[in-house]
Amino acid sequence: MSEQATAAGTEQAPARGRGRGRRPADEVRADVLRTAGELLLAEGIADLTFERVARLSGVSKTTLYKWWPSKGALALDGYFHAVQHTLAFPDTGDIRADLRDQLRAFVHLMTTTPAGRILAELIGQSQTDPDLAVAYRTLYSSERRRLAAERLRAAQEAGQVRDDVDVQVVVDQLWGAVYHRLLVPDEPVTEAFADALVQNVLTGITRP
Amino acid sequence: MSEQATAAGTEQAPARGRGRGRRPADEVRADVLRTAGELLLAEGIADLTFERVARLSGVSKTTLYKWWPSKGALALDGYFHAVQHTLAFPDTGDIRADLRDQLRAFVHLMTTTPAGRILAELIGQSQTDPDLAVAYRTLYSSERRRLAAERLRAAQEAGQVRDDVDVQVVVDQLWGAVYHRLLVPDEPVTEAFADALVQNVLTGITRP
Repeated sequence: MSEQATAAGTEQAPARGRGRGRRPADEVRADVLRTAGELLLAEGIADLTFERVARLSGVSKTTLYKWWPSKGALALDGYFHAVQHTLAFPDTGDIRADLRDQLRAFVHLMTTTPAGRILAELIGQSQTDPDLAVAYRTLYSSERRRLAAERLRAAQEAGQVRDDVDVQVVVDQLWGAVYHRLLVPDEPVTEAFADALVQNVLTGITRP
Repeated sequence: MSEQATAAGTEQAPARGRGRGRRPADEVRADVLRTAGELLLAEGIADLTFERVARLSGVSKTTLYKWWPSKGALALDGYFHAVQHTLAFPDTGDIRADLRDQLRAFVHLMTTTPAGRILAELIGQSQTDPDLAVAYRTLYSSERRRLAAERLRAAQEAGQVRDDVDVQVVVDQLWGAVYHRLLVPDEPVTEAFADALVQNVLTGITRP
């Protein structure tokens, strides 16, 4: 998917009329993903249909079905591309500041757009829909995990994080902890929560 | 519910025949919860029906519906009581050992019984079923959170955990992290994972 990455998330309209085989496939794909992602973030998953995405992106439903076997797959692929700039992992060399900023952006996205509800419902449905579960992991979560782990490994190489730390466990203790509150909302998802997550896992909670 | 706590999770058969108003209500309730909990842990949620629980516990379906408005509520209440001994929070005075032992027991329960699948499906369904979501929080997660927080606060009082730590955030970074892997299984839920969760959050991941 990475070759379409640059086109996604921008507001730019399709450069040349309606697909119909004239434009390169990757450009058409990027248009579709942008359309699906924007629709999803603006209105939620209930209003996302192959019909509407086909109409808005000027691509036939047949082509859409060829590329994305289900609405879930189209939604997840569109969502991944729509949020990748917002959820980028900064690397200023300061792991604490970088994690705090990224976690705050993540919490902001989850609580001020339909994204939090959409992901919670997709994760929810994927408990009883094995195809959606595979799509979720393939098209979304495993790639987000990879990007987070990459930033944490850079911090290990920079000598800021201990070498014996399994960075995948840290992913569950930062972003996984936020998903937990989204899915079981006993406690609120706030910026203070994001900051406390980073503080706890970087410094540890025991008294020195 | 705490008054029924002692009867739950035991293998003991009903002491006196079939309810029918002869036994005190709390004793009957405890029998039903034990029956529902055992059925759930042995066979999963698909096989749990009001019909079967009524037959096995010798209590009328009318009574069951009076106490539990839905199968989800009966399942959650039964599950809470069935696992409360397994998931008890030890207090030996050593917060690190106590958390490690409890997390290991939790991971063991989630991975070697239907419990992990059951909770994942209940959390999944509760994303689109507001009544189940309320039942889940009321009958299960908020009470589990309360018990975990209680143990962490005892560690604060004992001077082992810093006073400025919000213990509810730690709950998401330990048990919430496990739920995250259960719900989105990109990475496995293992004893090593449980140990790493405790190590990371107690000691912190930064290089000293």
